[in-house]
Amino acid sequence: MTRKSFTVAVVGATGVVGRTMIQVLHERGFPVGQLRLLASERSAGRTVTIDGRDHEIQLASGDAFDGVDIALFSAGGGPSRDLAPLAAARGATVIDNSSAWRMDDAIPLVVSQVNPADLEGHPGIIANPNCSTMQLVAPLMALRDAVGIERVVVDTYQAVSGTGGAAIRELEGQVRAYVAGEPTDVTVYPHQIAFNALPQVDVFLPNGYTKEEWKVVTESRKILHLPDLRVSCTAVRVPVFVAHSEAVHVETRDAITADRARELFAAVAGVVVQDDPATSTYPLATEAAGSDDIFVGRVRQDPSIAGDRGLAFWVVSDNLRKGAATNAVQIAEVLVERGWVQAGAARGATPYRAEGTAIGAPA
Amino acid sequence: MTRKSFTVAVVGATGVVGRTMIQVLHERGFPVGQLRLLASERSAGRTVTIDGRDHEIQLASGDAFDGVDIALFSAGGGPSRDLAPLAAARGATVIDNSSAWRMDDAIPLVVSQVNPADLEGHPGIIANPNCSTMQLVAPLMALRDAVGIERVVVDTYQAVSGTGGAAIRELEGQVRAYVAGEPTDVTVYPHQIAFNALPQVDVFLPNGYTKEEWKVVTESRKILHLPDLRVSCTAVRVPVFVAHSEAVHVETRDAITADRARELFAAVAGVVVQDDPATSTYPLATEAAGSDDIFVGRVRQDPSIAGDRGLAFWVVSDNLRKGAATNAVQIAEVLVERGWVQAGAARGATPYRAEGTAIGAPA
Repeated sequence: MTRKSFTVAVVGATGVVGRTMIQVLHERGFPVGQLRLLASERSAGRTVTIDGRDHEIQLASGDAFDGVDIALFSAGGGPSRDLAPLAAARGATVIDNSSAWRMDDAIPLVVSQVNPADLEGHPGIIANPNCSTMQLVAPLMALRDAVGIERVVVDTYQAVSGTGGAAIRELEGQVRAYVAGEPTDVTVYPHQIAFNALPQVDVFLPNGYTKEEWKVVTESRKILHLPDLRVSCTAVRVPVFVAHSEAVHVETRDAITADRARELFAAVAGVVVQDDPATSTYPLATEAAGSDDIFVGRVRQDPSIAGDRGLAFWVVSDNLRKGAATNAVQIAEVLVERGWVQAGAARGATPYRAEGTAIGAPA
Repeated sequence: MTRKSFTVAVVGATGVVGRTMIQVLHERGFPVGQLRLLASERSAGRTVTIDGRDHEIQLASGDAFDGVDIALFSAGGGPSRDLAPLAAARGATVIDNSSAWRMDDAIPLVVSQVNPADLEGHPGIIANPNCSTMQLVAPLMALRDAVGIERVVVDTYQAVSGTGGAAIRELEGQVRAYVAGEPTDVTVYPHQIAFNALPQVDVFLPNGYTKEEWKVVTESRKILHLPDLRVSCTAVRVPVFVAHSEAVHVETRDAITADRARELFAAVAGVVVQDDPATSTYPLATEAAGSDDIFVGRVRQDPSIAGDRGLAFWVVSDNLRKGAATNAVQIAEVLVERGWVQAGAARGATPYRAEGTAIGAPA
């Protein structure tokens, strides 16, 4: 039996998340027949080397999606709004990492192990959640199902890679300037990020919250099917390159112990409990970077909630992987497994998979 | 009229906080007649240059406190437990920055602008609160007095200087190693602090909380005279040199708006409101470092609490200054102003104050 393979487009292929998408497709052995790399005019025409083969980056336009089965978008809200409907109209299933479609009632917003059933009957566009929300809702789901959740307070410690390549270079440059005793260059963020904590991620809304904080509120509700869930969030950028950390405080409906919570968390697919105070074992950004899992630790009862209905814990995950690229690919995997996406006409291509292949950076 | 002057001892004079104490005494023009610098055997005999004069560091022993009016301790819990009673027995008023005496019912635990009246009738030892607690309780006091506070959730972003000079050097060394492409040396903290967020400050208690987190709970209650205040805290070390940041979520008893909260915060002595989202103005560690004030911003209503009884905000303060040295000196100022400490026999010394004088590092 010949395994089906899919024509996959990656839109925003030269960005940090786009490149991680290509890497993750490869690592997970996703049945890619043809890989089509798309980007804006700025990057179109450049070449990236993957699996020993050169791929030319094509201009992302409606026609570029002809014959595409699955299109992974990570090109920002504007291109997603413009191009995703054009891709979907041509029969592609779009999995979009921008915020453009997330809160659209017609569009499923999916974390692969939390609400995969929401993918059924999708209208051709599927939204990939915000990175901060992604890692939060997996442990919350376990609590919701076992004891119910009433209120969540979450404060984030977010890596600069969530902003993109320019922000990685900015932190790197500021650190180098510090070591060299030179003045610090501030361009990407409104203030120096090196040796600082910036209580601003994305722009401000009229209610005083940042867009990032409000995404955590509204996206969590949608993914967890808890439209009235009470959520409070402060989102903070810290001088970390990769992986977001979160301090989470949950008020549950029924009583729960820390031990029971650890069991529940560990039973969630893709969640790893790292929790041994005696050996200073807890999730860390530097260790989570590069992994597809969500790490949970520092699980303890919160005595500030009566009746053993309070829990506090710490959640860390690679914001480029599970927080973006990996979940997008996992959504595609669910679609394939459940037959909710169909490969187009046979193209005779071999599945995109090879041992020991490096994903090249743009040439 | 001759202004009274005091013989002041600084115990732990070579440490990061001890040196800041000397600096702050100087900056604030505290009426120091004689300054006696004390430290452990390791540092005794060394010389520091202050105000153009060399001061020999003497061994901190009971006898070293003969004739001392005010002793500022920042030498850790062990020396404080051993030496503070010896100093107090000799008539010195001890202001202790360690955790040794803080939760002792007989010992006042004081933030200068929050509960100065607790100093009255002190037994010769006064405790200076933990740095994370210090900056938190000033804004909380304003809310307590106006609308009552029911529950506080606080997550911290703490600077390495809270651990001491070795931790500052560790972050510095790790950053230099990163830039040089060399392996990272991890000694002070259980894990790399550069480009990371460590959810462990101080050691773990049997209940799963760290000592730091539990200090925030118990010290806040004592200082605010709210023995049943419900507090939840996750304390996190971040790669920042100086100044702690805190994300705070408060459930108040009565309704309050963000505007009213800003007014209340701004009315507290030593609290500065920095809050203008339109210009990305909010408190920052890099800007608070070197200041004696507590900075509050990102003030907004928290819709996850019904009835307008929820507030979220961001608090930043220099952990070495208001979080330690400055508050200790401010306690001494209150004692002097209210006549709760007496200068010993006239020593004929001139007040310790000079223009443009650098406080020297240990020779």
